[in-house]
Amino acid sequence: MLLPAEKPIPNIPETNLPKLVIVGGGFGGLKLARKLIKGPFQVILLDKNNYHQFQPLFYQVATAGLEPSAISFPLRKIFHDTPNSIFRMAEVHSFDSKIKRLYSDIGYIDYDYLVLAMGADTNYFGNQSIEYNSSPMKTVSEALYIRNKIISNYERAINIEKQEDRKSLMNVVIVGGGPTGVELAGAMAELRNNVFPKDYPELNFSNMKVVLIEAGPKLLGAMSEESQDHSLRYLQKLGVEVMLDTKVQDYDGEQVKLEGKESISTHTLLWAAGIKPNLIDGLTKEHFAPNGRIYVDEMNRVVGEKDIFVLGDVALLREEKYPKGHPQVAQVAMQQAENLAKNLINLTKGKEMEPFRYKDLGSMATVGRKLAVVDLPFIKFQGLMAWLTWLFVHLMAILGVKNKMFIFMDWAWNYLSFDPSLRLLIKPKYVKASERKELIEEK
Amino acid sequence: MLLPAEKPIPNIPETNLPKLVIVGGGFGGLKLARKLIKGPFQVILLDKNNYHQFQPLFYQVATAGLEPSAISFPLRKIFHDTPNSIFRMAEVHSFDSKIKRLYSDIGYIDYDYLVLAMGADTNYFGNQSIEYNSSPMKTVSEALYIRNKIISNYERAINIEKQEDRKSLMNVVIVGGGPTGVELAGAMAELRNNVFPKDYPELNFSNMKVVLIEAGPKLLGAMSEESQDHSLRYLQKLGVEVMLDTKVQDYDGEQVKLEGKESISTHTLLWAAGIKPNLIDGLTKEHFAPNGRIYVDEMNRVVGEKDIFVLGDVALLREEKYPKGHPQVAQVAMQQAENLAKNLINLTKGKEMEPFRYKDLGSMATVGRKLAVVDLPFIKFQGLMAWLTWLFVHLMAILGVKNKMFIFMDWAWNYLSFDPSLRLLIKPKYVKASERKELIEEK
Repeated sequence: MLLPAEKPIPNIPETNLPKLVIVGGGFGGLKLARKLIKGPFQVILLDKNNYHQFQPLFYQVATAGLEPSAISFPLRKIFHDTPNSIFRMAEVHSFDSKIKRLYSDIGYIDYDYLVLAMGADTNYFGNQSIEYNSSPMKTVSEALYIRNKIISNYERAINIEKQEDRKSLMNVVIVGGGPTGVELAGAMAELRNNVFPKDYPELNFSNMKVVLIEAGPKLLGAMSEESQDHSLRYLQKLGVEVMLDTKVQDYDGEQVKLEGKESISTHTLLWAAGIKPNLIDGLTKEHFAPNGRIYVDEMNRVVGEKDIFVLGDVALLREEKYPKGHPQVAQVAMQQAENLAKNLINLTKGKEMEPFRYKDLGSMATVGRKLAVVDLPFIKFQGLMAWLTWLFVHLMAILGVKNKMFIFMDWAWNYLSFDPSLRLLIKPKYVKASERKELIEEK
Repeated sequence: MLLPAEKPIPNIPETNLPKLVIVGGGFGGLKLARKLIKGPFQVILLDKNNYHQFQPLFYQVATAGLEPSAISFPLRKIFHDTPNSIFRMAEVHSFDSKIKRLYSDIGYIDYDYLVLAMGADTNYFGNQSIEYNSSPMKTVSEALYIRNKIISNYERAINIEKQEDRKSLMNVVIVGGGPTGVELAGAMAELRNNVFPKDYPELNFSNMKVVLIEAGPKLLGAMSEESQDHSLRYLQKLGVEVMLDTKVQDYDGEQVKLEGKESISTHTLLWAAGIKPNLIDGLTKEHFAPNGRIYVDEMNRVVGEKDIFVLGDVALLREEKYPKGHPQVAQVAMQQAENLAKNLINLTKGKEMEPFRYKDLGSMATVGRKLAVVDLPFIKFQGLMAWLTWLFVHLMAILGVKNKMFIFMDWAWNYLSFDPSLRLLIKPKYVKASERKELIEEK
């Protein structure tokens, strides 16, 4: 049998349209596919999952507020009634720009235009022990894993006699003071304050620490000073221990070692301290910036290539106002996708392409009930209004009427009842009854 | 360190109440716990999961209509504000009736009264090859696994060139013509008829078989003849191939071997052909019927024991009208629990215990949209009215206001849109980025 890499991906509809292959169905790749799906290209979207993930709400999956399905959108759904364009679930590993061929685990495909939109994964900055022992949150599965981990830690803690020995199972330490870290810390603190004590009356949650560690001097480094100060105050109000100017040295699964400070005991280290672009083989070293992003021109085109484009987190596009590249956020990826869609159409018509100009629509982060911070270009505000704005903007941004409806209901329920009801340890691994017996015997 | 079996379960509140230990939070165990949770006992409920599972809707999880969380109810939730009574997540393996001690993976506990309500698991009747290769559906995790398996089969099938070679990935064969088998077959056929063709335009779903195999001469053996006939007709209308009087001999993961009939190609054999009670060590052979159920008297008390009771699927209680024991359904378990709750209170007051009398409230099964069959003691009906009755009864039976509300919304959505939107392959196994790389390299 031929290896997948040696045979073409089968069953691609035959057309006379130029083949546009998009790698990754995140904010950038999905937006581009939706813009061009009905022509003048044959769009072939590849992703290793069969769904789009709405990253801004991962933290609510991790803290038992939302189901994974509520923030996941089946990619096949946008390809209903698109006879030329298709989706395939595939892991892409490399491409050969000379013969314009992309290789994946289900076969190769020859492209006319290639768009790389693979997004980013967690960056541990080379520390393998942290990578091995901490929990990242860059996929919906990882978020679900965090939920399961925390619940099973409490189910374990309850069976430990001494208060002292339980602490490390109960403490949650979050590294990274960006929006993800801030939102996780706030939600964890609210669970501790309102929910867990009812579920686990045997445990003393005043002993449970929620710690947020940030290497820099401020939380939400990319936001305004008002937002930075407010988010810090909100977190402290909820009882989060915020440690600024603090560097994590190492973590062995039980002790977080800090530079020049006392270690913290925890079984749960949530790592939200950095990201790095996902890789693909096919470009030479000169194409990559030291941080792993790929240099592109103002049309998102790989420098020196004619038909390869890069979107979002992976792209390093130097605009005058952003000499070090744009922030790695959804807004940038989506705006680049919109611009690229126009440019690709221009290209087929022989028209000039237009350079990308990022329009910063603002940023926001939520800390807890009625506590959020919003920076808009023309106004900054905090508190209840900011929280309602955050809710509205995220609800509108979620794909799919059903997801919108269910998330709204979930939020309303959680708000009114103080009872995010997904505290279920549905074990991720499927074990057959027969194997269970063996596992028990092995013990 | 002491092994769990050698030390007591820690942190049990101290009371003067008699200790009632319940093994299993299914329909029987949960009902009993709810009845007695506030006295006159200290209730200690043990389950290997931290949630109650609503089995009658597993098939909707398997067919992407409902999320696991919608039909799971956190057991800790019923123990809010019950200072004496508690829940513990534990796997129970044995007990010693002489010293009245129960052993589990988190330690032992001494009981005054022990209630065994462990329910049943899938029965493969000794065929290890079927056990290894087929998919059971006796837990919500197993139902989720079926959903993932079917979706990933299609994602695989699409990359296979020849129609002929795809068939076994597309076919679904269900064994067992009870309510579970009938409901699964109907739901699968509806997915094939209405949903999958839109998602997978490259595949030809007229080639996909949904086969339901039953060893006996009728579907729904326990129901009325009208219901049996109607369910058969409904399934055939939906395009299910129903094979009665057909015995499965073996299954190797690709071919279902039948007794005296041609084999069927399929990667997906769903096994709903039988159940067997879950076991616990502590009783002698004479206590067990050949089918694994435990002989109890009319008070659900283990024959020859004073303080050990058995509920539901595990109990073999011979009433005059049910000389071979009651059907292994939720209704029996719940009615037994109600009766036992009263009897346990009688016991503490020195009053006589009352024998259990099963009141058959009827049974029902749903085949598809507007297609269901209902047998009530006084009337039998089928079709739209039966379907609405089925929906109403199951909605009312589901625990928790939030679950009710969300399931109702899910059903309304699925009914109106023909689009059960949970076609997500959220991989059950969590693989860290670092391990993913290794996996790829190993390939």
